[in-house]
Amino acid sequence: MDYLDLVKELVRESSSRLVFLVMDGLAGIPVTGRGKTELELAHRPHLDQLAAEGVTGLIDPIAPGFTPGSGPAHLALFGYDPVKYNIGRGVLEALGIDFPLEPGDVAIRINFCTVDEKGVITDRRAGRISTEKCKTLAAELDRIELPGVKLFVRPVKEHRAAMVLRAPGLGSALNDTDPQLEGKKPHELKPGDKASKKTADLTNRFLGQARSVMAQHHPANFLLLRGFAAFQRYPSFAELYKLKAAAIAQYPMYKGLARMLGMEILPAGDKLPDLVEALEANFKNYTFFYVHVKKTDSSGEDGDWARKMEVIEQVDALVPRIAALKPEVIVVTGDHSTPAALKGHSWHPLPVLIWSSTVRPDEVTQFTERACVAGGLGRLPSTSLMPLALAHALKLEKFGA
Amino acid sequence: MDYLDLVKELVRESSSRLVFLVMDGLAGIPVTGRGKTELELAHRPHLDQLAAEGVTGLIDPIAPGFTPGSGPAHLALFGYDPVKYNIGRGVLEALGIDFPLEPGDVAIRINFCTVDEKGVITDRRAGRISTEKCKTLAAELDRIELPGVKLFVRPVKEHRAAMVLRAPGLGSALNDTDPQLEGKKPHELKPGDKASKKTADLTNRFLGQARSVMAQHHPANFLLLRGFAAFQRYPSFAELYKLKAAAIAQYPMYKGLARMLGMEILPAGDKLPDLVEALEANFKNYTFFYVHVKKTDSSGEDGDWARKMEVIEQVDALVPRIAALKPEVIVVTGDHSTPAALKGHSWHPLPVLIWSSTVRPDEVTQFTERACVAGGLGRLPSTSLMPLALAHALKLEKFGA
Repeated sequence: MDYLDLVKELVRESSSRLVFLVMDGLAGIPVTGRGKTELELAHRPHLDQLAAEGVTGLIDPIAPGFTPGSGPAHLALFGYDPVKYNIGRGVLEALGIDFPLEPGDVAIRINFCTVDEKGVITDRRAGRISTEKCKTLAAELDRIELPGVKLFVRPVKEHRAAMVLRAPGLGSALNDTDPQLEGKKPHELKPGDKASKKTADLTNRFLGQARSVMAQHHPANFLLLRGFAAFQRYPSFAELYKLKAAAIAQYPMYKGLARMLGMEILPAGDKLPDLVEALEANFKNYTFFYVHVKKTDSSGEDGDWARKMEVIEQVDALVPRIAALKPEVIVVTGDHSTPAALKGHSWHPLPVLIWSSTVRPDEVTQFTERACVAGGLGRLPSTSLMPLALAHALKLEKFGA
Repeated sequence: MDYLDLVKELVRESSSRLVFLVMDGLAGIPVTGRGKTELELAHRPHLDQLAAEGVTGLIDPIAPGFTPGSGPAHLALFGYDPVKYNIGRGVLEALGIDFPLEPGDVAIRINFCTVDEKGVITDRRAGRISTEKCKTLAAELDRIELPGVKLFVRPVKEHRAAMVLRAPGLGSALNDTDPQLEGKKPHELKPGDKASKKTADLTNRFLGQARSVMAQHHPANFLLLRGFAAFQRYPSFAELYKLKAAAIAQYPMYKGLARMLGMEILPAGDKLPDLVEALEANFKNYTFFYVHVKKTDSSGEDGDWARKMEVIEQVDALVPRIAALKPEVIVVTGDHSTPAALKGHSWHPLPVLIWSSTVRPDEVTQFTERACVAGGLGRLPSTSLMPLALAHALKLEKFGA
């Protein structure tokens, strides 16, 4: 029995509400030349107030040292062991375009590429074709028919697309055909088991037809496949936590992942205040809210610490509106670190605060990476947050007598 | 291999002595309107001195967010994974009256109740009958004879009693007959496996005879069953830790649990100083002492922070007598939190101190929840305490070369 089973056994339904405010890629390391992180540089009076009244700490999405992708990092935040509940790249890609996956579907990421007359890859990104071109190609490939299987090909962006095979008994133990290098031919598919042999045969048929379809679309005249992954439904927030859960997110992948966990996706505009407006409009109808801020991550990925700092300040200004709704528990954190200094995700632990009338406050009065080191939560795996938040909302019964 | 196996492999016997001073329900959250916990409000010069000289930290009985019952919380303190070594309610009830359980016994909690002529429950507690009446009823029910099984019925308190079935091959996968509601009939027993079918058949025979026996005892004219649980002997302190262990406790459940782990139960009066007197009288004869203070928990359950504070102060005054015995290791902590503000057990982590000449002291000089956040032990599961205490007593050999 792992702790998710124990939570499921002990949780009770109540009208208490939890808000998880997730700033993607929130944490950082000192910005070059300034000695402080983006979060430390930001003016954050309202986050600091929540930290002062609540209890704080640091969380690790996977374990110390491991840098997570957004999928595993979010699963951990939501209480699912990200190694056990390992989302494959193909599935994440399909979730990212809100494709309605069904259990057993095998999802694969497509990269359109250029090959020469011998089939040798000359450009792994097909000259970064436009998204318009990507849509045309996907539509043509989607028309390919394969025996005994439903095939879906959907555009993602530029040279990227997603493909889904739907039939009973398909395996996903298959290597990438992408050799990750130009000047090579795509890899042959080597199925790892019998069920995957069936997937390989269908995929090879698909590749044969795709080669003909794409011949006249140079530079995008072939495709590479990555991340074969079978979709399985994970236990939902309703099953595990007896929560009526809603997601307020502006980017497809996060909506797709939330939908996979049984959250309802609330409509929201594309500005930051729209997130809080959606929260306010729906506050009475759910007991759990996942509010996702994307731009802390994208500015971090761009190495733009000043923009990241501004996004944090804009989120800080919205905090009073969240607090005014009086949820029983507010959790503020991120899914992982994205230090502008590193221009990418990192393994650094994240600050977290839990605000509730049932916390035992600590001495921390600032919501920063360094201040939260001294927090009363100590350093925890991200997966501890859901049990803690449920406990603070008085939704977890006692274990044993 | 879990850490208990590793401890067992590495431990060596020695004359060094360990004292575990366990204040039940020790920790809290701020008392309403005072901004401090019961422990923070208490005058505790001697506990603070131990904290200053020792090393401190926070412990979680199960894992962050989980509120434990007293049984699991104590098992964790004693090094046993409380989820793996899950004590059922019936067993805990039988331990609570010091009933000498044998491996394979199925123990069940009885609640005497009132039913009407149709068998519908009209009072789940039979008007809270006296403990005297409870004894009479238990004695009559204890005389019921069942084929091929030994039946024991023992009084607990007021409307509560305990029942034990002893025969080979009895299962315990059985639901409660208590529907938890008045106006309903008791539930039928639905065995979850074949061995439990046998238990169900015997229990149904018992219930039939009990109905006749109890008919003239209105309002206690029937009984409800809860928490069917098979007793299994856990590895003892002698086997696991090579310790000669003694328990000094004033409440039956704690004595029963300690006896189950192979501790000897030392006689003690019912005042707080009697605990230390028993320790002093027996100090030469054992290498491990579990000293249990109950009233920190019961005052917390009553929401009486002032009384809880006083109990802590009374315990503090006894600390010099414990230190004067010069045990190699003193551990002070609780089994779980019982904040007066919540009037019940909670999930908040507990402060712990380890005092020994072998500790590496930290900067903490106060034995409080908030001060111990900065302790050198950090935040640990309660199950880490036994290995740590053994190590500080120099009883654990090196692992590997």
